[in-house]
This record gives sequence, structure tokens and C-alpha cells, in this order.
Amino acid sequence: MKILIINGPNLNLLGKREPEVYGNQTFESYLDELQKRYPTHTLAYFQSNVEGELITKIQEAGFTAEGIILNAGGYTHTSVALADAIAAVPAPVIEVHISNVFKREDFRHVSMIGKNCRGSISGFGMDSYRLAIESLVQTG
Amino acid sequence: MKILIINGPNLNLLGKREPEVYGNQTFESYLDELQKRYPTHTLAYFQSNVEGELITKIQEAGFTAEGIILNAGGYTHTSVALADAIAAVPAPVIEVHISNVFKREDFRHVSMIGKNCRGSISGFGMDSYRLAIESLVQTG
Amino acid sequence: MKILIINGPNLNLLGKREPEVYGNQTFESYLDELQKRYPTHTLAYFQSNVEGELITKIQEAGFTAEGIILNAGGYTHTSVALADAIAAVPAPVIEVHISNVFKREDFRHVSMIGKNCRGSISGFGMDSYRLAIESLVQTG
Amino acid sequence: MKILIINGPNLNLLGKREPEVYGNQTFESYLDELQKRYPTHTLAYFQSNVEGELITKIQEAGFTAEGIILNAGGYTHTSVALADAIAAVPAPVIEVHISNVFKREDFRHVSMIGKNCRGSISGFGMDSYRLAIESLVQTG
Amino acid sequence: MKILIINGPNLNLLGKREPEVYGNQTFESYLDELQKRYPTHTLAYFQSNVEGELITKIQEAGFTAEGIILNAGGYTHTSVALADAIAAVPAPVIEVHISNVFKREDFRHVSMIGKNCRGSISGFGMDSYRLAIESLVQTG
Amino acid sequence: MKILIINGPNLNLLGKREPEVYGNQTFESYLDELQKRYPTHTLAYFQSNVEGELITKIQEAGFTAEGIILNAGGYTHTSVALADAIAAVPAPVIEVHISNVFKREDFRHVSMIGKNCRGSISGFGMDSYRLAIESLVQTG
Amino acid sequence: MKILIINGPNLNLLGKREPEVYGNQTFESYLDELQKRYPTHTLAYFQSNVEGELITKIQEAGFTAEGIILNAGGYTHTSVALADAIAAVPAPVIEVHISNVFKREDFRHVSMIGKNCRGSISGFGMDSYRLAIESLVQTG
Amino acid sequence: MKILIINGPNLNLLGKREPEVYGNQTFESYLDELQKRYPTHTLAYFQSNVEGELITKIQEAGFTAEGIILNAGGYTHTSVALADAIAAVPAPVIEVHISNVFKREDFRHVSMIGKNCRGSISGFGMDSYRLAIESLVQTG
Amino acid sequence: MKILIINGPNLNLLGKREPEVYGNQTFESYLDELQKRYPTHTLAYFQSNVEGELITKIQEAGFTAEGIILNAGGYTHTSVALADAIAAVPAPVIEVHISNVFKREDFRHVSMIGKNCRGSISGFGMDSYRLAIESLVQTG
Amino acid sequence: MKILIINGPNLNLLGKREPEVYGNQTFESYLDELQKRYPTHTLAYFQSNVEGELITKIQEAGFTAEGIILNAGGYTHTSVALADAIAAVPAPVIEVHISNVFKREDFRHVSMIGKNCRGSISGFGMDSYRLAIESLVQTG
Amino acid sequence: MKILIINGPNLNLLGKREPEVYGNQTFESYLDELQKRYPTHTLAYFQSNVEGELITKIQEAGFTAEGIILNAGGYTHTSVALADAIAAVPAPVIEVHISNVFKREDFRHVSMIGKNCRGSISGFGMDSYRLAIESLVQTG
Amino acid sequence: MKILIINGPNLNLLGKREPEVYGNQTFESYLDELQKRYPTHTLAYFQSNVEGELITKIQEAGFTAEGIILNAGGYTHTSVALADAIAAVPAPVIEVHISNVFKREDFRHVSMIGKNCRGSISGFGMDSYRLAIESLVQTG
Repeated sequence: MKILIINGPNLNLLGKREPEVYGNQTFESYLDELQKRYPTHTLAYFQSNVEGELITKIQEAGFTAEGIILNAGGYTHTSVALADAIAAVPAPVIEVHISNVFKREDFRHVSMIGKNCRGSISGFGMDSYRLAIESLVQTG
Repeated sequence: MKILIINGPNLNLLGKREPEVYGNQTFESYLDELQKRYPTHTLAYFQSNVEGELITKIQEAGFTAEGIILNAGGYTHTSVALADAIAAVPAPVIEVHISNVFKREDFRHVSMIGKNCRGSISGFGMDSYRLAIESLVQTG
Repeated sequence: MKILIINGPNLNLLGKREPEVYGNQTFESYLDELQKRYPTHTLAYFQSNVEGELITKIQEAGFTAEGIILNAGGYTHTSVALADAIAAVPAPVIEVHISNVFKREDFRHVSMIGKNCRGSISGFGMDSYRLAIESLVQTG
Repeated sequence: MKILIINGPNLNLLGKREPEVYGNQTFESYLDELQKRYPTHTLAYFQSNVEGELITKIQEAGFTAEGIILNAGGYTHTSVALADAIAAVPAPVIEVHISNVFKREDFRHVSMIGKNCRGSISGFGMDSYRLAIESLVQTG
Repeated sequence: MKILIINGPNLNLLGKREPEVYGNQTFESYLDELQKRYPTHTLAYFQSNVEGELITKIQEAGFTAEGIILNAGGYTHTSVALADAIAAVPAPVIEVHISNVFKREDFRHVSMIGKNCRGSISGFGMDSYRLAIESLVQTG
Repeated sequence: MKILIINGPNLNLLGKREPEVYGNQTFESYLDELQKRYPTHTLAYFQSNVEGELITKIQEAGFTAEGIILNAGGYTHTSVALADAIAAVPAPVIEVHISNVFKREDFRHVSMIGKNCRGSISGFGMDSYRLAIESLVQTG
Repeated sequence: MKILIINGPNLNLLGKREPEVYGNQTFESYLDELQKRYPTHTLAYFQSNVEGELITKIQEAGFTAEGIILNAGGYTHTSVALADAIAAVPAPVIEVHISNVFKREDFRHVSMIGKNCRGSISGFGMDSYRLAIESLVQTG
Repeated sequence: MKILIINGPNLNLLGKREPEVYGNQTFESYLDELQKRYPTHTLAYFQSNVEGELITKIQEAGFTAEGIILNAGGYTHTSVALADAIAAVPAPVIEVHISNVFKREDFRHVSMIGKNCRGSISGFGMDSYRLAIESLVQTG
Repeated sequence: MKILIINGPNLNLLGKREPEVYGNQTFESYLDELQKRYPTHTLAYFQSNVEGELITKIQEAGFTAEGIILNAGGYTHTSVALADAIAAVPAPVIEVHISNVFKREDFRHVSMIGKNCRGSISGFGMDSYRLAIESLVQTG
Repeated sequence: MKILIINGPNLNLLGKREPEVYGNQTFESYLDELQKRYPTHTLAYFQSNVEGELITKIQEAGFTAEGIILNAGGYTHTSVALADAIAAVPAPVIEVHISNVFKREDFRHVSMIGKNCRGSISGFGMDSYRLAIESLVQTG
Repeated sequence: MKILIINGPNLNLLGKREPEVYGNQTFESYLDELQKRYPTHTLAYFQSNVEGELITKIQEAGFTAEGIILNAGGYTHTSVALADAIAAVPAPVIEVHISNVFKREDFRHVSMIGKNCRGSISGFGMDSYRLAIESLVQTG
Repeated sequence: MKILIINGPNLNLLGKREPEVYGNQTFESYLDELQKRYPTHTLAYFQSNVEGELITKIQEAGFTAEGIILNAGGYTHTSVALADAIAAVPAPVIEVHISNVFKREDFRHVSMIGKNCRGSISGFGMDSYRLAIESLVQTG
């Protein structure tokens, strides 16, 4: 199974940014572990701080990937354009968040993209990504 | 590992109620499958339509269970008392929903209990429960 | 025709509670009159102050009764779970209120259950129940 | 008993307009049936698309009719002036709607006139008018 | 004087739940002290996590008790039905809270029951109950 | 000076409608008194329940009258179209109300037309009209 | 092609009213030009300040005209009844505005009728009407 | 007749402050004219920038004056305490404003004091005060 | 124990102002009774209608008094500055109200100062002050 | 005449994305047709998914193009920065939408850019672009 | 250059009040340092807890001072009257705050006075005042 | 000291865009002056219209620069992602605006980034940047 993981703004800082919220492992290191755990599946990875590049990536991959795991970071709460991109492609998109967004500021309780995703997983730290893979492998 | 699954109002109707939203498997049948899949863990189950009985169950189990998986149904969106019960116990509670709540009415986008749970999983059909178990087995 | 009348919280006090709003006849006495007026129909009755018991009753009766008349009292304005129960059963549910809810506080102008009921009747005193029966007998 | 039925804007199209919402019987045809069903009562009828003409009619009839049945259509949700007219006359006014307004857009959930009417009946198709007559005959 | 103290959801956990908010004395132990302090008055006690049972208790006691002290816990902020029960009985009801609700989340600043109670006391820890007794003994 | 007084919906009922709010003098009788008090000025009068007829009258008179006194009744709070008519004509328009709108329902506290009028006078009973004339005679 | 242009309240003043907003050509003069520009199409015209008369006209023409161009003026922002009339007829209705409504007061940013129209054109002065004709001729 | 005029914050600057809004006459000079126009009545005057001093003055005069004319300036829109003072005294209080508050910022459209005053007059420049006197002399 | 009672705007009128809401005893007379009831404690008293003087008093007393009882009247609902003063001093401040604020207008349901006070007591008439003393004597 | 058409996020998918909403023609193919229809005008085209690139393009072209036709897609509803770019350049900008935004979600009813554009055209499918050209050719 | 610094409520407590928010230097001591740093400019100082006295000071100094630096404390967020005073005087007023208001409660994010000030500086501790002087010396 | 100045969208147009709001000096020219005024400090400069590029720049510079001065333009009011970037880096960030944002549209009164910045300076034209440098040099 071919799965693309997309990380949005500031997630390139994982491991150095606010470790009390996001832990202190880099995403690249975590991705290695994850690939080892699911050796029969192909995990691709993309990160950008630019909203439009996330959209373009979803457009490119969304007609061929069997699943997209998307942590849209701060754009989760504001981006109509990103939500439209998800709606425009046939691949199932899983919304993930490392932290529990409901424990944080009110504006993080709103997801503009949620209604266009298959499902949503938040609050399990890095493990949120693995659970998303589990959901695709099982049901995709 | 000792895990309690709690289902709230109307989830006793799974399999007969609105199959286009909730599927057509009864929860009991699904639970059997789940227990077989995780033979080394103990899965207990409780369902009630009464908000206060859900609270009482969380109070009883929340000091001893190693994890609680809670689908609070309609009380998710309105119950301060249920949220208080979750905050009062040491066991990690995972919020699950069968349907993607963000595809439904606006009042279902608000979770009163989310901030007191460890994490939240919604939209994967029955598989949401399995993903919650995965999260506990991995991290609990 | 088999019709179930369900009264929610505080409606067991009819006849003693706030007579200037609700009149001074007990519901039991009114029910007798009603049964006499519709001798060819079977009127069953249930009252509870517990939201979850109302839900359970709707679940039990909702697959067999030919009509349910529901005065959900204070739960009308707050209960997602009750609304979900109504949506889950095939029996038509008629929402009734003794007082005209629009003459009272703003929070009584909102009905959480209205959209899942066939229709709504409010403001006619005890006679609201009879009108609901009329609607079922005519159209059910 | 002398009862006036008043229909507001677009209800002159009953039978041709959106039959999936409003059915396909003209109101005139329904009125005939209704008059036959209540032969001892006098049913008068008035329809206008003009808010001010509805007000004028309520003013004219409201000091002599024994009951007014009002389906104010779209003005239900916006007209302070119509509500004031109802409050100004002694005749009891019953608010009726053919469709269940709570199943439709949010702006239809607000009734500006409700608090000045004796009671409200919605969702029973054409039968809403008959139930309103029943309420007047019984209690007026 | 015959006074009933009613505690709502989660208050059965007093002494074990979040001691930094609620202190570490059980309510039963506190009640003993309170009874000794007011030997000429009869203090009855009831606790339930079920909203409807709280309503039923208020209905039962509210026609005979000379005062009811009610800590409705999480139902304070959401329950129309509980507010209606208070309005329906002649006994004066005093609203109490252990913590200062205004120091906590916004949704705790709203009391649905306040307008139907004689008065409100919050923020004094367990002593809130004693102050409520003082208010009744003085003025009841 | 040529002054037009325009009364909106339901003000034709003055003297019979809700005398505790609006007094029990008809407007015609009051107008006679007013004309006698200001013999050197010409007072014209127009009343309609139809929003569009009020607009048409303002358009007709608004290019020639030296002042318009407008009690728009219920349309005060809802009519963009009436406000546009006032803005479209050169004659100064004075907004008047018999009752003090701030003592009444919240929706009466908003005036859609206020910003296009020269000034506003409310709460003085019939005398509000005389004060409006005073303002025009003095300043117009 | 048979096209009806309907102008709502205050648009009869075009040419004399607020020329800095609406220009200084009368609509009749503009209509002549327009008819000359589209000689093979029949342009009918109707104007009223009365909301209900606009509704009646839409009802009359809406089953036969091949297109309706509607500038509803101030009723655009408030009229549920007008929106219902548009939804009730098969003819496509194009919403037009002379001024750019988004440059004006907030209440003009909301269109009650927009969702029932085929499309909307605003801000091009008188030319908005021509563009609406273009849209019908091309696509109607 | 003994009438007190009270001016609130910044009205001591009349004549020097923003003449395009408030004109260029000092209030003292205007008051002289006013007293001459009503020689048989006693006009007292008080101005303060301090909310509490306005309250104290209303308390002092409100039990003896036959009328109070109050331009509360910026406190109009924010002061519960001033509104309470007006409610506490028997003298009729007339709310006046020099400018038309509805032509200005949104927060000036709300009057906290309006519901406790007899009536309200705004938009007539200095003449608003004279109209208030007229209302008292006529009706007080 | 040294306790300061501070009364805000309009509370100097106790005994003459709206006796149906506030009773008909002057505060001075009540204070005498209170001092007699607690002879071993020193009760000081301060009243002002001026928000800033209340702030100054809290600043002066708040570093030495063992408790402050504050009825801030109308400033309760609007004053950020008063709330800041309470937060700035070490003395515990008890918020009291004579009437039950939840039975009154919506704007009285909000307390700007509540979160900075130790606790809040409202609705017991004059007895609210005694209960506040009880709370301090017991726990201060 | 030199006209630039700018398409925002996801509009590069026209022809493959959600054909039931957006039709099944690619924009490039449509553009060819359009250029042929207006042979004497120069149509340039730019598309980007990146908000900042749209801004840069508007800055570059906005000082020289005689007209810009902008379909900002999802950024229409959220972008202050795009609106600022439009305000910063002298070229007239026409807002277009393929679908009727008022038939879709509430957040699409708000246009952040509308007030800085000359006019707005929505709901005519691809033809919205041609109508925009018509408006420029006529009036630009 | 003649500059007046005005401090509002509770700023007289600087140095003793909440040092973790406001630091532990008294304002008088800081003012000495500031005067030494700008020896060629005259710094005057005024502090009051009374809103009306701040208004009066702005009125007195605002026609002669070359710049006013205003920390309005809690009145920043609520005072229309203070904002009006600033608008009424020709001197430029600079709004300053010691703490970063955006890190604190929501009600501190709103400034009623901001739009009438030349500019605003917040979050730099005592240094906010020096930056305000810098802005005046440079640009005043 | 090493300071980075970052300008967001449309600020590359300074000097040509809306000079009545932003003045007519280019930023490059101003930067030269600024560097000359602070010869012992290093001023770096970055501008982009792309939100994600601003984020990337803050990430790159935020771990080494001793201060960042950020004018985020239109992204100030909408960007959660930019705010997250600021929170993720140790360098102090100063929010600056050329115009006084409180004199402009309501949506400009909200700063999404303010709470993560050290402080905020707005309204001083180009001089806002110098004041920000002053704040860093003094306190950084």
C-alpha cells in the first residue's frame, strides 16, 4: 500500500520546537521507525510551510496514493483552500494532530478540513501517525 | 492490559439504527471479533442511555482500569458532568466516534469531553474502537 | 391504533406545579378522559424524569408503536441524545408542549428534537395531546 | 363558530410549488373538504402576498372572528409588524405551517409571531389547518 | 428545622477527586461535623450522578423540607429540567458551589438554575454548605 | 411650513389597540388638536400597513415637503427599503415613537431607519409627534 | 427570448436619487438603450416598492418567462418571502445590483435571495443589467 | 417648574470640541437663551466628567426636581450604575443627545440608560435640550 | 478580626430606593445590628458612587484588612479597573449582592470581579453581608 | 485591451475536480474559446495555489493591465493580504466565481476581497469569466 | 518639548502590585530616570484611579501639551468617555501598556481608545513609556 | 546586535501603494537611514508575500538572531501558522505596524500573532520600525 504523509507548517521543527508540547524526536527519525514497523507498505513524506505547496502536493498525490495522512498544523483551523483540495481528490485523507487540540486555545477546536477527511486522530503524540496508518491498512 | 469500553446513548441500537450512518453490525458481535484480535488483553464493556450511569461507571472503573474507551454519543456535545468525571479519574480515556462528527450538524463539532481525554478518534466506523485499543496498548 | 404518550421531567407534577402555567388537572385524570374519547385506539403512557429512561422507552416502543406523542419537558431544549433516539426509530414522533414555548424564556424557543419529529404542537394546554392524537389517527 | 384562515406569501401556489415540500393539492380544493368536515362552522379564507394586507385583514377580522388560523409563510420569520397586529386584536390566532420548519433552514426556526399566538402547529402537511380548527372548536 | 442537602454528579468523589480544587475531606465526614454544629436542626443528605434522580428528589422533598441546599455540579450549567423542578416546589433552594466558579472555564459562569433559587453561594470550599445553612436558619 | 405625518402598520388602531401601551385617543382626534395648536403650519397625514406604500409616500412627498414625521411602527426595526427611501429624498425626516422602545423587547432597540433620519424622539406618548413638529418649526 | 426585468423598492428613483451611488440616468431611458442593443429579445419591465407585488410578479412571470433579472433593492437583504417565490418558479432568476454591495454597510453583504438565484452580478452600475442579459442569452 | 439639566463627560468642551459634530456654541451661552425662552421655569445645571458624581447628583435632585434632562455622553453606552440611579429616583428623566447617535459608531447605538428614562430625544443639536423641556412642561 | 465593608453606587439609597427589590432598612441601621452580633470583630464601612474611589479604598485597606466585603453594585458588571484592584491586594475580598442577580437582567449575570474574589454570595437580602462575615470569621 | 485572468487554488483541477459543481471542461480549453471570441483583446492567464504568488502577480500586473479577472477560490473567504493587494493597484479587478457561492457553505458567503473589487459575478459556470470580460470591454 | 504622562487606575501600585506582571520599580523612581535621560524635555506626571479625573486632565493638558502618554489601565477596555476626551483635544496621545495585553484575558485585547490615539505601544515593561517619548521627540 | 526585519505581503509596495496610508518612501531607502542611525548593530532584511516563506525565515533566523522585527501585513490578522512559528523560536519578536490598525476595519483590530510576540508597536509610520529597534537595543 502506498501512503503519503504530509506535514504542514512548523512541523519541520519537531524535536526542537516546544518539546513539552510536541516531544523531542525529529519526524525523520520517527518516520524511519514507522517504515520499519510497516515494511510491506511504502511511506512517502512531504513537508512544507507554504499552504499552496501543501495543496499542490495533495493534488499531485491524491489521484494515485492509496491514502494520505495530513497534519496541516496551523492551516487546519483557517484554510478553506486546503479543505477544497482534499475534497477534490479521490484518495482518503486522514487528519492527524500530535497534541490534543481540545486542550489548547479555542481557535484550535475548529477544523476547516475535518469534514472533507475520512476521519480524525488527535492527541497521541507521534503515535497519531501510526494509528492513521493502521486505519488505512485496515480499511483503505 | 485491562480496558473498559463504554458506549453511551443509542449505541445499543448499533446494527438496527440508521445503517447508512452507523453500519449494520451489532456492537456485541464486533466486540467478539475485537477480543479475539487482542487475546492478551481484557476487554470489558458497558452501555447505558443514562448520563449519570455513564458517570458512575467512569468513577468505578477509572481508578483501576488501564484505559477507558468512551463513545459518549449525544452526551459528547452537552455534558459538563461527564467531562468532570473523566477529569476526576486517573485512567486515560480515549474519545471515539463511529461517524466523522465534522461531516454532520454543527452542534456535533463541539466536544465537551475532548479536553479531558488523552486523545480523540472519529470517523473510522467500528474500526475507531480498534484504533483506540491500539493507542492504549502502544502508549498506556 | 397503538399510541404511546411519553412525558418527560416534572410533568409528573401536573396538577400541583405552577397551575397558572400548566393548569390544575393531573395527567392521569386527563388520560382517562382522552382514552374515553378515543375508545378504538390504545393509549399507553410513560413518564420519567430521567433523560436516559426516556431514550430507552423510545427505543423500545419506537419499532412497534404506530405513533409516539412526546412532551420532553426541559430536555426538549438541550438533549442531543433524545433527538438521536427519535431519529433511530421508525415510529412517527409528535412533539407537544402544554404551554406556548414562544411566550417563555429564549432558551425554550430552541427545540433540539423538532427536526426529528413529524410535527410539533404547542400552546393548547392539555388539549395539545389530543391534537397530536388527531394528527396520528388522521395521517399515521 | 366563525373562523378565518389566512395564508401568506406564496401559499397561493400550493399545488404547483415544490410539491415535494408542500404536496400537490391546491388550497381551495383542500378548503372545500375542510368545510364539508366542519359543516356547523363558517370558514372564511384570505390570501395575500403583501405583508401589509395580511395585517389589515387581521385588524378587520380580529375584533369579530372567533378564531384566526394564520400561515404567514416567509413573513413568519421576519415580521414585527405582523406580530404587532396579532397582539392588537382579541381573537385567538393559531400559527400553522405545512412543513416542519425545524427540518429546514435555520432562519425558519425563529418565529417572530409565535409569542403573540395562542399556539403553534407545524409539520402535518395540509392537516395542520384541520388540527388548528380542532383546537379552536374545542377550546375557543 | 428540616434541611436537605443534595449533591449532584461527581460530588461523591469528594476527598479523592482533584484535591487541589475540592479539598481532601469526604462529604460524609464533613456532614458529621456540620450536624454536630447545628444539633437542633435535621440535616438529610442525598447524592446522585443522575440528573433525573436529582429532579425526583427535589420533587419529593420540595413540598415538605424547610430548605434545600443544592450543589448541582456539572448540571448547574446545562439543566433546564433541574431548573424547572426547583421552580415547581415551594421549598427555598440555595445554590452552592465548593470552588469559585468564576475562576474556572467560561461555561461554568452560567447557571441555569440560579434564577429559580433563593440565593447563591460559591467559592468557600466545604464552608459554602455551612453558609447556606446559616442563610436558612436565619431567614427560612 | 408644510409637514407630512406618516404612520406605519397598526397605528390605524390607535385608541383601540393595547391602550396601556399606546393610550386611548385615536390619531385623527389627536391630529385635530395638533393642527389647532399650529395653525400657521399645514399638517398632512398618511397611514398605511403596507411597507411599500410608506416608501412610495416618502418618495412622493420627500422632494416637496419641508419636513416628514415618521412613525414606522414595526418596520422601524426591519426595513432596509424604508431606510433607503429616507436617504433618497431631501426632506428632513424625524423618527418618532409613542412608547419608549427601550422599555420593550430587544428587537425594538434596533432602528434600521435612525441613521437616515435627522433625529429621533421616543417615549412621550402622542406628544412625541408635537415635539417632532417643534423640532422642524425651530430648525427646519 | 422573453426576459423580464424586475426592479424593487426605490429603483423608480434612479436618476434622481443619490447620483453619486446610482448614476443619473433613469431606468426607462436605460431600458430603451438595452432593448435596442438586443433587438431579437423581448424585454419586459416591472417596478414596485411593495414586497408582495414583487412576489406576485415573480409568480406570474416565473412559469412562462425564459429569464428574470431581479434587482430586489433593500428587500434583497431581508425577504424570506421573496426568496421563497424565486424557489417556487422554474424560470432562472439573476440577482443584480447597480452598486457593489460589499463596499457598503454590513447588512448589505447578506443576500437572502442569492441561494435561490442562478447567479449574481453586482457593482457594474447600469451595466449589471446588460451582463445579466448576456448570461441568459448565452446559457438560458 | 423646577428642571435640572445634567451634562456628562466632555460636554464641558461644547463650543471648542469637534465643532463639525457638536456645533460651536458653549453650553453656558445656550443655557442663557433657554432660560430666557422659559422664564416661568427654573433651569438648574450640573456638569461632571465623573460617572459617580453624575449618580450622586441624580440621587440628590431626583427626589425633588420635577424633571431631569440628562445627556450622559459616553457613559450612556456603558453605565449600569447610572441606569440604576435613574431607576432609583421618582423624577422623570429625559435622555438627550446633541448628535444623532445612530449616524455614529455601533457602540453608540446602545443605550444602557434608555429603559429607565421616560423618553429619548437625539439628533437635533442644542435644540434637543429645548425639546426635552417642551416634553416636561407639557406632560410632567 | 478587622473587616471592611464597601458598598458601591446607589447603595447609599438603601431603605429609600426600590424597596420591593432592596428592602426598606438603611444600611447604617443594619450595620449597627451586625456590629452588635459580632462584638469581637471590627467592622469598618465605606460607600461611594465613584468607581475610582472604590478602587482607592480597596488599595488602602487591602494590604491591612483581614477581609473585605464588597457590594460593587452596577460596577460589578462592567469594571475591569475594580477587578484589577482586587487582584492587586492580598486581603481576601468577598463579593456580595442583596438581590439574586440571576433573577434580573442578563447583563447582571456577568461579574467582572468574581474571578478575583475569594467567593460570592447573592440573593439573601441584607443577610448576604452577615454570611460574608461568617465566611471570613470561619476561614479568614 | 490587455486583460489578465488569475485563478487561485484548486482551479488548476477544473475538468477533473468535482464535475457536478465545476463542470468538466479544463480552463485552458475554455480560455482558447474565450480568446477566439474576443480576438481584438489580449487575454493573459495565471494560476497558482500559493496565496503569496497570487498577490505578487496582482502587484506585477496591476499597474499595467487594463483589467484583472480574479477567481481567488478558497482564498476569497479568508485572505486579508489578497484584498490589500487589490486595493494597492490601480487596475480594476473583477471578482468571479464559477459556482453560486450562496448555494454553498456559510463560510463561502463572505468575501474578504469583494469591497476592493469593481464588481462581482458568480454562479454562471465558466461563463462568469466571459461576463467579466464583457464588463471590462464595455466600461474599462 | 512638554510631555505629560498620565497613568490610570491601579498604576499607583506599581512596585507593590503583582510584580511578576508589572515589575518591582515604583513609577516615581522610573520617572526620575526617564527625566534624566531626556534632560531637554519637560515630563509632567498625573495619576488617578477616577475615570472622570483622567478625562479632565486630558481636557486641561490636551490643548497645550505637545504630547500625552496615556496608560489608561483597566479603563482602556471599557471607556467611551475617555476615548471621546482624546478625540476632543489636538495633542497627540500615545497609548502605552506595560504588559503585552494580547497575552492576557480576551477583554484586554479590545482597546476603546486606540482609534483616537496616534499610536500604541505595549509589552515592553516600563520601557514602553520611553519608547512613547522617543516617538514624540522624533515625530511630534 | 544582530536584528532581522521581516516585512510581509504588500509591504514591497511601500512608496507606491496608497501613500495617504503608508507614506511615499520605499522601505529600502528607509532601511539605509535606519542602518546609518544604528551603525553598531547589524540590520538584515527580508520581504515576502508568501505566508510560508515568512514562517521559514522566522524558523531560520529565530534560533540565532538577537531580535526579529515583524510587520506581517495582512497575515497578522489571520495566520495561526505564523503565530506558531514565532512561539517555536527563542528570539524575541516585535510586532510592528506602520498605520494605526485601530483606526481601520474591525478585522484589523485582531492580532493572531500578538500573544507570541514580546510587544507590539503600531501607528507611527516608518518610525514604528525604529522604535522596535530601540526596544531591542535597550532590553534585548
